[in-house]
Amino acid sequence: MRTYIDCMPCFIRQALEAARHATDDPEVHEQVVREVLHLASDMDMNQNPPAIGQQIHRWVRNLSGDPDPYRRVKEAFNAIALALYPELRERVNRADNPLETAIRLAIAGNIIDFGVFGSVETEMLEQTIDECLSADFDLSALEEFTEAIQSAGRILFLADNAGEIVFDRLLIEQLPLEKVTVAVKGAPIINDATMADAEAAGLTSMVKVIDNGSDVPGTLLRSCSESFQYVFENADLIIAKGQGNYETLSEADRPIYFLLKVKCPVIAEHIGCETGRMFFQKTAVMTGEK
Amino acid sequence: MRTYIDCMPCFIRQALEAARHATDDPEVHEQVVREVLHLASDMDMNQNPPAIGQQIHRWVRNLSGDPDPYRRVKEAFNAIALALYPELRERVNRADNPLETAIRLAIAGNIIDFGVFGSVETEMLEQTIDECLSADFDLSALEEFTEAIQSAGRILFLADNAGEIVFDRLLIEQLPLEKVTVAVKGAPIINDATMADAEAAGLTSMVKVIDNGSDVPGTLLRSCSESFQYVFENADLIIAKGQGNYETLSEADRPIYFLLKVKCPVIAEHIGCETGRMFFQKTAVMTGEK
Repeated sequence: MRTYIDCMPCFIRQALEAARHATDDPEVHEQVVREVLHLASDMDMNQNPPAIGQQIHRWVRNLSGDPDPYRRVKEAFNAIALALYPELRERVNRADNPLETAIRLAIAGNIIDFGVFGSVETEMLEQTIDECLSADFDLSALEEFTEAIQSAGRILFLADNAGEIVFDRLLIEQLPLEKVTVAVKGAPIINDATMADAEAAGLTSMVKVIDNGSDVPGTLLRSCSESFQYVFENADLIIAKGQGNYETLSEADRPIYFLLKVKCPVIAEHIGCETGRMFFQKTAVMTGEK
Repeated sequence: MRTYIDCMPCFIRQALEAARHATDDPEVHEQVVREVLHLASDMDMNQNPPAIGQQIHRWVRNLSGDPDPYRRVKEAFNAIALALYPELRERVNRADNPLETAIRLAIAGNIIDFGVFGSVETEMLEQTIDECLSADFDLSALEEFTEAIQSAGRILFLADNAGEIVFDRLLIEQLPLEKVTVAVKGAPIINDATMADAEAAGLTSMVKVIDNGSDVPGTLLRSCSESFQYVFENADLIIAKGQGNYETLSEADRPIYFLLKVKCPVIAEHIGCETGRMFFQKTAVMTGEK
């Protein structure tokens, strides 16, 4: 998916928020925003939004001198999600269809997205959990997905954000663990999960976890390591969490199920739905590719 | 009031919205946004936000070739407000304190602000009217204001937006009409009221209406005509509607009452209140000047 002109104000806001996470120095905030305005004025919009995000957040990290501005945010949301985990796991176990409930909760966790929101409140997270547990759900997609899990030899799970990765664990626990590889980002980018977050979520002792070698807030294959690309190309089923993975992989010719909460009007229009919707769909049945 | 770094993403959004009002051509939208990004990257932030807005919207009008992108929006909101007017006037007349009710309604009309909002729905307007009629109100400011009206020889009313100017009429009707001059913008800028809107609102046959000779979305004196500056300097009481007038006049050494709905976090912080509040206060008692 290409970048739309509507993404531009959002990039500027995101850069300012990232700069504020990195430092309290208003001079640095201004310098970051001015650099990003300048950079954006000349940006190739045929790139997808995460490719532009990568460049912008490299600037933020360089100018602020903070290699991981969202470190505290990531730790805080891992802790919040881990506190909710036992109750949510109980809910999955008690459910008529544990896989369906786990998918719903994994999508709910996708609200923890500091690329879209300047802040995420615990209340907002709890409300999203309630909404996702009761929202309409595509049962035919669930059936296909269940079959795809059973027939797949190799399942690749593309994680999205810290905190969210604890919600992902609920879904990963419903998969045949020996077939699963979870991929996290290769370096800090916004609040995306890295290996430290997979460890905090308890995933590294449960399944194989790899990093994708990249600092793009999505999965931009040319920016990923060769070893990750090999795993990606050879997976029979890919589960891709979040908007960034959708933005980078919506045109990929692979068997990908996207699981996300639609949080921005550009993605909503690209998908052809309302903002706020849960999105659980396979690549091939995507509508409205532009 | 100076421009804050938080205003930057807002300027970019505003430019895109204005471009979309001007033309359906996506190439022009992109060109406008790129120019404004470039312009903003080098902008002197010691200027107040409307001074920057003036430059940005001049670019939008130049690049789009539309001298008045919000013309249809202005006409639509004049019509919507005029349809509400008879009922609102009745409400003012029936009120225990008609001046207070008229002030509340004039502030409610300030929600019709396309500088802040990409769109304004009729529902939002009706909800704001209800909120403003029941919100807390500074009765001591009302008392002082009532006295100031009585003792003033010359009252200058600085109008803000089209549509809103019909709500202003309710307040102007409570003033001694022979003392009142209403000022509108000298040229189209966002959805700010010009002489055509004062006519549509029925003000020109009721009081003296002048234009300020400027296309700044506020009252930037150095950009105004000499004749307007003379009226401004010689008024005994100035009633200034909206955020743009606050941004340009918050430090002015004149007896100004500001009437506005606080719609953006930067103004809220400058004033020292919450977003969404009604603001009705005289210059001298302003808090937190930065």
